[in-house]
Amino acid sequence: MSNQPEYRMSGSGNYSYSRNSGFQRTAIEAAKGLINKAISENLEISNFVSSSNSPKTFRLADLGCSEGPNTFLAVQNIVDAVELKFKHHGLLGPQLPDFHVFFSDISSNDFNKLFTSLPPERKYYATGVPGSFHGRLFPSASLNFVHSSYSVQMLSRVPKEVEDRNSPAWNKGRIHYGNASDETFKAYEAQCLKDMESFLDARAHEVVHGGLVALILPGCPIGIPYSQVFFNKTLELLGSCLMDMVKKGIISEEKVDSFNIPTFFPSMQQLEAVVKRNGCFSIEMVDTIPQLKPQPKALSSTMRSGMEGIIKKHFGDEFDLDMLFDLLSKKFEESFSNFDPEKAVTLFVLLKRKDSN
Amino acid sequence: MSNQPEYRMSGSGNYSYSRNSGFQRTAIEAAKGLINKAISENLEISNFVSSSNSPKTFRLADLGCSEGPNTFLAVQNIVDAVELKFKHHGLLGPQLPDFHVFFSDISSNDFNKLFTSLPPERKYYATGVPGSFHGRLFPSASLNFVHSSYSVQMLSRVPKEVEDRNSPAWNKGRIHYGNASDETFKAYEAQCLKDMESFLDARAHEVVHGGLVALILPGCPIGIPYSQVFFNKTLELLGSCLMDMVKKGIISEEKVDSFNIPTFFPSMQQLEAVVKRNGCFSIEMVDTIPQLKPQPKALSSTMRSGMEGIIKKHFGDEFDLDMLFDLLSKKFEESFSNFDPEKAVTLFVLLKRKDSN
Repeated sequence: MSNQPEYRMSGSGNYSYSRNSGFQRTAIEAAKGLINKAISENLEISNFVSSSNSPKTFRLADLGCSEGPNTFLAVQNIVDAVELKFKHHGLLGPQLPDFHVFFSDISSNDFNKLFTSLPPERKYYATGVPGSFHGRLFPSASLNFVHSSYSVQMLSRVPKEVEDRNSPAWNKGRIHYGNASDETFKAYEAQCLKDMESFLDARAHEVVHGGLVALILPGCPIGIPYSQVFFNKTLELLGSCLMDMVKKGIISEEKVDSFNIPTFFPSMQQLEAVVKRNGCFSIEMVDTIPQLKPQPKALSSTMRSGMEGIIKKHFGDEFDLDMLFDLLSKKFEESFSNFDPEKAVTLFVLLKRKDSN
Repeated sequence: MSNQPEYRMSGSGNYSYSRNSGFQRTAIEAAKGLINKAISENLEISNFVSSSNSPKTFRLADLGCSEGPNTFLAVQNIVDAVELKFKHHGLLGPQLPDFHVFFSDISSNDFNKLFTSLPPERKYYATGVPGSFHGRLFPSASLNFVHSSYSVQMLSRVPKEVEDRNSPAWNKGRIHYGNASDETFKAYEAQCLKDMESFLDARAHEVVHGGLVALILPGCPIGIPYSQVFFNKTLELLGSCLMDMVKKGIISEEKVDSFNIPTFFPSMQQLEAVVKRNGCFSIEMVDTIPQLKPQPKALSSTMRSGMEGIIKKHFGDEFDLDMLFDLLSKKFEESFSNFDPEKAVTLFVLLKRKDSN
């Protein structure tokens, strides 16, 4: 039902997301404790203690699920934590709800792979939902829990001005806002806030009153200028590798000028501000997960797995990805002391759908 | 959650189901009037006239959806008919429920194709559900309407005895029960009844009280011996083409002996008997849709689109499908006067989930 453009950040084969998502996996594992706490302290189960005999369904969506396996780990964590909460309230066996899990991602995601790799021993009914989470994906008041990990930083599009040659936000010779002009940064920031608003607006319709939304995303640590943020610096380096390929005559400068990565790493304050402006959710928990410093090679592989889809789409199938990521890997090794993991953070926010609005 | 073996009857490219499903499409179009009548006369909407302000969701599943486009036509028919019924009861605009549609097929179905070809103007939220309809696919009491067209005739497996060299039901030199021994027929029939029972048992859990199940499937007309049934005769002819290829030394006889099509065309009486034995559903409507006589070429193409998947799986990727279906097409032309469309019928059954059980 959404007409938004869909950007896909994933690769295949050796560099597929499912093989190289260790970076995000670390975040999921660190988030596990936070999710357990969120459910134990914030999930309202009174709605599930039914007066009738008809069993209730607990509906859970993972937005930006990709093709697995991280989504299966995250979903299993949530199902286990919800069951534990029910058991602590003396609800057992047939009193436990059925779990209906909605794995959602853009329609170009490989759902066939997701479906054939579903854990056979799962204790839930699985479905796939194609579409952009910047729009509506589910019926009104139909979800009890929404989980989204390392996805909400994806923008619905590259900001228009950044692609406009005649705008001061035109991002010549760069592919992201990290080392760009203030105008470029502001265009990215505005797009992020707009996208977060439409994300929250859609979820406000879909989540039942009292339902929970757990967001996990890479963000900007407090007090760190955006040019210094770890993730922004990695994308700056990737951009410089593309410009090296321009200098070697392998790709045209115009092609790099018109290439921009549609992702923004907000600060916790920005996230909180957009939630408050939306008004439909209370903020129940905020936390940050520190970043472990990855190895240069691993970081390069993770970036390749996340970005080869979008790079191929822009530069064409014949583009030499090996050359690009070899360059990146070398540059990481040369300059890795400049990459400070303290200048990276994973944000965790737990929202609860308010009863009014 | 199901461990049943999954048979896939579909092809790709020129012979893909989506290009050659005209045979089934005719049935869907003929079924449209029956579906409209079923919904108009049998759908209970009192559950949707909510006393609270929270909107209700109408959950609809198409079981055996394949990759489209027939499933989209069928689902749109149902959504339109349900909306019409609501409107006739004075329910309009925000009083109408949201529609949540579950497209389900075995996990080897091409859901990627299904998802990228969803009608952009659809008025429902779409999801995909991988798995066998012989087992549970949905939470308890979560569906308002189940639709299944040209799918329930598929068995969960070839009957064990039919594949057993030492059984009297061993089906040497044939690929189906149409021209087989009584023992073979009985093994197929028993498998069909067992599969129908597990289908109904699963749906009895999943469908809300008062919810509807519409089944459309090719069947055996009353009083026609199974060897004379149109569909059985077409499969008999396909088997004879495979035996011709054995005689030419192209494939081995053993390979044909061990190949059997897992499909059974029940009579209306058999269908009614199994519903009554299950006990959870009342039969609200039964009807039959007469078969139009197809052209020999069209019939051969339809059969190829439906069966090239299962044939390749058994005979290998290098098997000469063109030769097989050229042979079939020629045999159809030679003997088409023996193929009587009055000896084919499409069965339509509307079931309603009883309040008790």
